[in-house]
Amino acid sequence: MTYCVGLKLNAGLVLLSDTRTNAGLDNIACYRKMFFFEERGERAIVVMTAGSLSVTQTTLARLNEAIHDEMADETTSIMKAQTMLQVATIIGDTLSRTRREIAEQCRDLRQQASASMIVAGQRRGGDMRMYLIYPEGNFIEATEDTPFLQIGEHKYGKPILDRVVTPATSLADAQKAVLLSMDSTLRSNLSVGMPLDLAIIARDACAVTTRRRIGEGDADFARMSAAWSAALRDSFVNISI
Amino acid sequence: MTYCVGLKLNAGLVLLSDTRTNAGLDNIACYRKMFFFEERGERAIVVMTAGSLSVTQTTLARLNEAIHDEMADETTSIMKAQTMLQVATIIGDTLSRTRREIAEQCRDLRQQASASMIVAGQRRGGDMRMYLIYPEGNFIEATEDTPFLQIGEHKYGKPILDRVVTPATSLADAQKAVLLSMDSTLRSNLSVGMPLDLAIIARDACAVTTRRRIGEGDADFARMSAAWSAALRDSFVNISI
Repeated sequence: MTYCVGLKLNAGLVLLSDTRTNAGLDNIACYRKMFFFEERGERAIVVMTAGSLSVTQTTLARLNEAIHDEMADETTSIMKAQTMLQVATIIGDTLSRTRREIAEQCRDLRQQASASMIVAGQRRGGDMRMYLIYPEGNFIEATEDTPFLQIGEHKYGKPILDRVVTPATSLADAQKAVLLSMDSTLRSNLSVGMPLDLAIIARDACAVTTRRRIGEGDADFARMSAAWSAALRDSFVNISI
Repeated sequence: MTYCVGLKLNAGLVLLSDTRTNAGLDNIACYRKMFFFEERGERAIVVMTAGSLSVTQTTLARLNEAIHDEMADETTSIMKAQTMLQVATIIGDTLSRTRREIAEQCRDLRQQASASMIVAGQRRGGDMRMYLIYPEGNFIEATEDTPFLQIGEHKYGKPILDRVVTPATSLADAQKAVLLSMDSTLRSNLSVGMPLDLAIIARDACAVTTRRRIGEGDADFARMSAAWSAALRDSFVNISI
């Protein structure tokens, strides 16, 4: 499986994904699930993926092919689209078409080939937007009321987000929140694994302002994870029933 | 949905269930999901249920019918079974048969009729045992390494259990752990709801030593829940990245 989470805050977009991919328990591999489409100062788009690797890779390859196509226009290239809504529509259409084709190829298997994506970004002159794109190509958007979106193994890491994230959350606190949300997921579900990819698109920068890969041996993450465990245990001990 | 959790500790068995049942989002009702079979000092068995209400109610009705049948013997009545293993086998067989019958009746619907159960207890002279019974009637048992079992919406409440529960956990701490695990689930998933049923079978008592219904207005639970939220937020604020 996968865990990807995105926050849409007043201060910017904060995105985190894991990298574990598995076909059965005996075939585990590491694949990046976070992809960048950027023209610094003009537009920054981050796409995170969950689901069948053949569907997500082919969808991304087609999005890239469309970008580099000489005939590309605003209806086919996410780097030329006029709005983030148009970006989401192009990605949704490409995902849906790819998924249907691969599902057709896999018809004789009992296996489902499906995938979903989180798309976040901003274009100069436009608003920051973040969408969750479903396998069928339709999508929903993060709002003031629900400033986060998750794909993959989303349940373990939801309680911490429900408690601490609001649109007013700072970028520093938001990084903490998504990393702790991921930490709970990593501990409770083997199908989600390190390394992690973290990205921030600060409001109106129209650029990926922070980009960090957090590896197995990352001292900061290990320290934060240990401190959180200790704090949870202390809180647990101190609460009376 | 449902959330039920059971801990098997050196000091005893600790069980907690919610009561929300829904058929679609517009048909929500409150049904007990925790059932007691007790002959104080001789045997205490607690059954918790998740899944299709028609399957779980019919299974429980059949288990009760078998107990009150004059012809009942150790192979049909869980109050006469010689061991907890035999209890689990009887319940598994009854669940599996009921599920198959109802699934057959529902064949024309696209809906699945399925259910699973947690069965925990002790018989005088025997060991405490706790089983998770699958819809097919087979089961797994809680062990030293994994002293808890969950059914229903188990993911939200798993991180806290993973962090704090070991076989050496005291009964007081265990109550805290299951209540906080439930609290996270209640906050993040609407399909799990109050009131809650809590039961404890202290080691070698062969009786349900604590039995508590925790309602919407329960002051102790509200205080604990608020204290936990505050502690989590404080811990969050104090952790640096």
